[in-house]
This record gives sequence, C-alpha cells and structure tokens, in this order.
Amino acid sequence: MSEGKADVVIKASHVVTMKSPGEVYSPGYVAIRGNRIVEVGSTGRLHLKAKETVSCRGQVAMPGLVNAHTHSPMTLLRGAVEDVPLRVWLNDLVWPVERNLTEEDVYWGSLLAQVEMLKAGVTCFNDHYFYMHKVVEALERSGARGALCQAVIEGEDSGRGRRELEGSLAFAKKFREHPSGRVKTYIGPHSEYSCGRELLARAAEAARTNGLSVHMHFAEDRGYYERVSAREGKEPALMLDEVGLLIGGSVFAHGVHMSQSEASLLARRGVALSHNPVSNMKVAAGLADVTMFKEQGMVVGLGTDGAASNNALDLLRDLRVAAILRKSTRGDTRAGPAYEVVAEATVDGAKALCLKGLGKLEGGYLADVVTVDVSQPHFQPLHDLYSAIVYSATGRDVRHVFVDGKHIVEDGRLVGLDEGLVIRMARRRAHLLLEKVRP
Amino acid sequence: MSEGKADVVIKASHVVTMKSPGEVYSPGYVAIRGNRIVEVGSTGRLHLKAKETVSCRGQVAMPGLVNAHTHSPMTLLRGAVEDVPLRVWLNDLVWPVERNLTEEDVYWGSLLAQVEMLKAGVTCFNDHYFYMHKVVEALERSGARGALCQAVIEGEDSGRGRRELEGSLAFAKKFREHPSGRVKTYIGPHSEYSCGRELLARAAEAARTNGLSVHMHFAEDRGYYERVSAREGKEPALMLDEVGLLIGGSVFAHGVHMSQSEASLLARRGVALSHNPVSNMKVAAGLADVTMFKEQGMVVGLGTDGAASNNALDLLRDLRVAAILRKSTRGDTRAGPAYEVVAEATVDGAKALCLKGLGKLEGGYLADVVTVDVSQPHFQPLHDLYSAIVYSATGRDVRHVFVDGKHIVEDGRLVGLDEGLVIRMARRRAHLLLEKVRP
Repeated sequence: MSEGKADVVIKASHVVTMKSPGEVYSPGYVAIRGNRIVEVGSTGRLHLKAKETVSCRGQVAMPGLVNAHTHSPMTLLRGAVEDVPLRVWLNDLVWPVERNLTEEDVYWGSLLAQVEMLKAGVTCFNDHYFYMHKVVEALERSGARGALCQAVIEGEDSGRGRRELEGSLAFAKKFREHPSGRVKTYIGPHSEYSCGRELLARAAEAARTNGLSVHMHFAEDRGYYERVSAREGKEPALMLDEVGLLIGGSVFAHGVHMSQSEASLLARRGVALSHNPVSNMKVAAGLADVTMFKEQGMVVGLGTDGAASNNALDLLRDLRVAAILRKSTRGDTRAGPAYEVVAEATVDGAKALCLKGLGKLEGGYLADVVTVDVSQPHFQPLHDLYSAIVYSATGRDVRHVFVDGKHIVEDGRLVGLDEGLVIRMARRRAHLLLEKVRP
Repeated sequence: MSEGKADVVIKASHVVTMKSPGEVYSPGYVAIRGNRIVEVGSTGRLHLKAKETVSCRGQVAMPGLVNAHTHSPMTLLRGAVEDVPLRVWLNDLVWPVERNLTEEDVYWGSLLAQVEMLKAGVTCFNDHYFYMHKVVEALERSGARGALCQAVIEGEDSGRGRRELEGSLAFAKKFREHPSGRVKTYIGPHSEYSCGRELLARAAEAARTNGLSVHMHFAEDRGYYERVSAREGKEPALMLDEVGLLIGGSVFAHGVHMSQSEASLLARRGVALSHNPVSNMKVAAGLADVTMFKEQGMVVGLGTDGAASNNALDLLRDLRVAAILRKSTRGDTRAGPAYEVVAEATVDGAKALCLKGLGKLEGGYLADVVTVDVSQPHFQPLHDLYSAIVYSATGRDVRHVFVDGKHIVEDGRLVGLDEGLVIRMARRRAHLLLEKVRP
C-alpha cells in the first residue's frame, strides 16, 4: 500500500478486478490518479488520501466495458426498418442511406451512440464506418475511448476500392497519435466478400508498411462466405492469409461460419474475434460456436454491432445472450460460464483490441471504471457477482462511469454534455436522411 | 366519448392499445374508473373529468405484461448454482431445496418475485409451485394479479402423486373465487414425464369435474420427452389426449420438442403455450420453433420461467430474445415481427391464460396499465414503437404500473410496500435454505 495521494477514490460494496475469478474485494476501493488506477484493494486497508471520494454503496465497481464491434453512427437507423429479409434491409435502407450520408449525420449519430454507450457502462468502442474524423470529434466531446477505422468497400468498382483504401490509411495515420490518448486506429477493409483479392492484398501491404492492424467483417453471412470459398477454391481465411491480411493484433467481427481450421489459423496469426450474438441472431446470420473458437486459441471479445441490427448498444445487456446462446448451441449448460463472459466484455475485449493496460482494475491500468447498482430486487439474493452481472444487469443499472480518470456519468446522469441536445440533433439528422431515401 | 368521471387519467406521449398494430394514440390517454378502463383515446378528445391525472411525458402507456410461466418463489435460488449440467443442478440444488422448503420461504421468495415483476411492468403472472396459499398471501400484499396452481409431482411414488393431486385440487377450489378478484387457479400436474399415465388421468378427471383447466410443463427436455414417447409408443401429446388432459383453456409451458402434429392437436383442443426462450436457452433444452406452433394455430404467450433459470423476471427484457431466437431458428428475418412479440407478452398472454378482459387498453378492460420511458438515448430516434418496446426496453424503463386500477409503481418506485424489508427477508430465507442443503 502506498501512502501517497489519489485524485479520486471509488468505494464500492464489491470490486470485481477481472484479474482472476477470485480477485474480488467486498467492500473495496479503486484509487485513481490522473488517468490511471493507482491502487485497488479492500476498504479496510485503504491508506491513500483522496481529493474526492465517490461512495457506491450497494454497487459493484468493475472495469469499463469494451464494445469490440459497432457502427456508432447507425443509431440514426435504429428501428427504422424491421422484420424484412436481409437483402431488402440492405438494398432499401442501409445502402441508400450510406450513399446519402453527410458528415453531420455521422457526428450526431455517433455522439448519440457514445452517450448511450457511456450511460450503459461501455467506455471503449471499436468502430467501423465512414467519415470517421467526425467520430473522433464526437469522441473528443463525449470523453469515450475508441478504436476506429474508416470502412473500405469495393463492390464492383475497383476505383472506389482504391480511393477508400487511401482514405482509410490516411485516417489511420492521421489519428493514431490523437492528443487525447483515447484513440487507436486500424485499416478497415469491409469484409472478405465486399473487397476483391487484389484490394485485400493492398490493404495488407498498407497496414504492414505503416505498423497498423486490421478491423474487418469475416464469415458473417453464409451465402457470401460460400461464394468467396467457391471463387477462391479454398477456405476464405486461407485466401486472407495468402494476401497477408492475417496481421497480428487485428480483430475480425462475427466469424459465424468459419471452420475449426480457420479459427485455428486466425488464432495462430494473432487475429482476435468480436462475437456479436444479438446482431447475428437478429439478421438470422447463424449461431457462432464461440466455444470452438476459444478451444482453437482465439481471443474473443463481445460486440453489439450497429444499432440498426441490435438495436440498443447496451453491451452489459448482451452478456446474457452471449452466455445462453453458447449453452443452447452446444447443448451444454457448462458452456459460456459467467466469469468467462464478463471477461469477454472487459479484459478479453481489451486484449482483442490490443489495448494494453485496459480491461482490469489494477494499479497502473487506465482508469476506465464503472459501477453497477446491484441493490435492486432483480439482483436479490446476491449469491454470485458474475452471475448477477451476466444475467441480471443491464446498462440501466450503471450508476458511475469513469473514462481515463474522468467522471463522465455521475449517479446515472451524464455530466458535461447536453443529452437533450444530442437527442434532438440526432432525431433531426435521421429525419432528413430518411427523407432522402424514402420514395 | 362519455362525459362522466374517471378516478385516474393517464396521459402519455404514446398509447399502445394492442387492439391492432395501427391503434396507437400519440399523444393519448387511458381513463380508469374502479378496476376498469373506461376510455382510451387521443389526448385532444378527452372530455372526462378525472380525480387524478398522471402525466407521462416521453412515455408509452401499454397493457400490463403477462408472464405466462414462472415459479415465483425460486427467486431464492437466483444465481445460487450456475454453469453446471442440468442433472447436477436439479439433483444438487433444486430438488434438495424443494424438499426443505418452508411456507415462509415461499412467501418471501414469491413476494420478492412479485416486487421485481411489478417494477418491471409484469402485472399478471402464471405460477406453478408448492405452498401456493403463501403465494396468494404475497399477492394480497403486493397487489399483483396471478394465475396459480399447486404442483403435483409423482416421480416413483404414486402415494405422493395422489396426495399432491388432492392438495392441488383443494388449492384450486379454495382460491378460485378469491375476494380480490385477482386470482385464477389451475390444476398443476408437473409434466408428462414426472407424473404417470394413471395420475395424469386422475388429474384430468379432477379438472373436468370441477370446471378447471391445467397448467403443466410439456416437451421441455428432449431426453424426458423421448422416454415418454418410447414408454407409451406414441407422441406424448397423444397420450395426454387419451387420458383427457388436453382440456380447453389449459396452458402448457415450453413445448420445445413437440412435433407439428402435437402442436396441431394442442391447438385443436384449445391448449395454449407459454414460450420461455431465455430459460430454454440457459438450460440448453433446445430452441423452440414458435413460428411453426403458431402456424398450427396455437395461442402463444411468453414466460420468464423461474429465477433459477433466467435469472431476472423481466419479461420486457425477454421480448428481444423471443424475437431474435425466432429469426435465427428459422433463418428468416421476417419471423417474430415486433408487434407479434409484444402481443405475446400482453393480449396473447391473457388469451393463453383465458383471462377475459385483460391484455388490451380498451374501455371495459381490466385496468392493468404500465408506462415505459422512451425518452432515454437507447430509444432514439424513435422510428417505431413496437421495435422500441421489443429491442430497446427493459423493465428498468418502466415508470408507472397500475394493477386492477390501483397505482402500484409510481415513477419507478413501489408504493405501499417496504421493498427493503422484502429483500432482507428473502435474503435471510435463502441463506437458511441453502445452509440446509449444502454439505
């Protein structure tokens, strides 16, 4: 125990460190200085003087959640078109909208997403979209932490693909050293099916040359996955390996249809997975065998995907789906144990994004800390903290949120940002955007 | 429009009547006199004088939710043992606990469940457990509405089976005309596998003789279902029909493994289903093809099942799982459209339990009304109310709850009941109970 000073001490009924299942302090404290955690321990052993103490009785302090795959500006489309076939949804909504998108749309849509995520305990999100410099602007305002990349889609137009790749690289290089310290960047080819082999090879070269890794979709839709297999005459992951795109530190989203050998290859290359169970189920993409992926050695984080296919960006709420989907897919109640699923949303999510010093409550780690109110009836009796977090908690139970040492959400209320304004502006952008694409 | 008087008028930004998808008033009102709704309409057309007006800006008023299958006292076991094989969970936890259960356990466990459900907008629950007179006592105190039955388990002991059937019948007869008007009763044989053919026939006779119907488990676990098929040499539903147990107005829980012809038979006999998606997934029972059940003409409601296998009794939160499970099981995004899933938790749930005058907001209907705060970021922009209810709402967004015209939850807080006391007592009962069964 150091006898020094802390800026803030969070005292909570329980502190879940995510260092190991047993490392819980009840009651405990988390001491923060600047943007780092200085100490975590049992309340009785606290010797640090603090400028400010935040008392969180009846609450669990835990690491801020890491949303390993989303498209934050898509909040504008939340619930806009539902219950239609995937192709209709893409052709009549998503693609026309994305062709008409403005920078203002991205800014307000992403800011709304960030407000929503912060209030729900998501302190870091891995984003894949267009006009990403506006997402950076929104992040400067919200105080969230982000791993960001600009999407590259080629489709039938190789000119478009090359232009977008240049844009993606320029974005990644420009914002990799953002002064806030809260931004990491990737190269963002959209997927194995929406970019041709040559463009994927170029993306791999651009990434390696510049010391970047990749965030892309992989094996989400069975039809597209099989088309690429047929075209290449091999499993799509083998093709990605041939073009050099399986770069260590990369993160692939979905992976629903990948084979055991593909999972093994990705694991050997150091490519992590974002599992997005709610989105996969909603768009009827299939049910991922996450247990198998992990048996092959993959690091697995959890993502919400965008609000057009979830529809809330409440990762805490999705933990339960992640757990029960694994049990039901495997036909085995032992699959997806509670601690493991909490780990995917915290420490493993940070690992998947290669964000060092993030995802645990431990001295020296970044001070991204959230508290969850477990005093409500739906948590009682509180037999097991991990089970409570996975099965009972939602983002609406989050009371305090710190990102990079800064107190962003106080007792359930966002401070330093006018939530009403964000909602009004996002509504207006959504209205204008949908007017453009609706007949 | 009547020019009379109302006791309470609820004014909300949106009123979702559940009479049909289009019958929504924005803004609208619900007028209540005594325990009935007298009128529902657009705010501009309100002419009734009201003793009290409840203003619900930014909120949706909708029918109270009907939880079509639960075991309310099992809150005591919430999260007590997780991630173990089903047989271990039953042998080492559930059954030993149930052998040691006291009336006090049932009272406080059920009261905790009722508090939790009411705060989450569940105004009516269909309960299947032991010492059910204590659940009635808890219901008298909480103000909830219940369809209740006392469980009958035979196992290897036909003496036990006959005794429990007598108890189940006595309970059903004694409490069917409860003075509160908030209790309905059933005969409660546990399941097709835990009661023998002779006892099931006796249960059928007891039900028919006394004008009762049945609430039981059916086709939940594949192993048990197949064992009964093999023993009887026919599909289990055919056996239930032969012994006369397919009584109109009955409700069967789960049905995960029933065939198309069984679903068709149940539908023809007027037996409804409670689909319990979260519990089915968590205990790895299988994935029900609810779309097929409905195609065969079954009325389908939604249940949480008990807190030992869900773990929250937040039906609103489960709507999303009900919808995405259907889409992913069918491989079709059109399955489980939002309005249909909201209907299962309200009007169809009431139909499944044969509770006339419940489940819609309409003049003459029972005044079970809840409001959901849709002003929060996770609902924005509010493109579609049904989608917002299914995909974004949880019980934590519920602000006001009326049951039988009585204001039970005011702005998120339970009135007229000491929530802290209920939690303390339930914790104590759980502690004592688990001490008895743990080595």
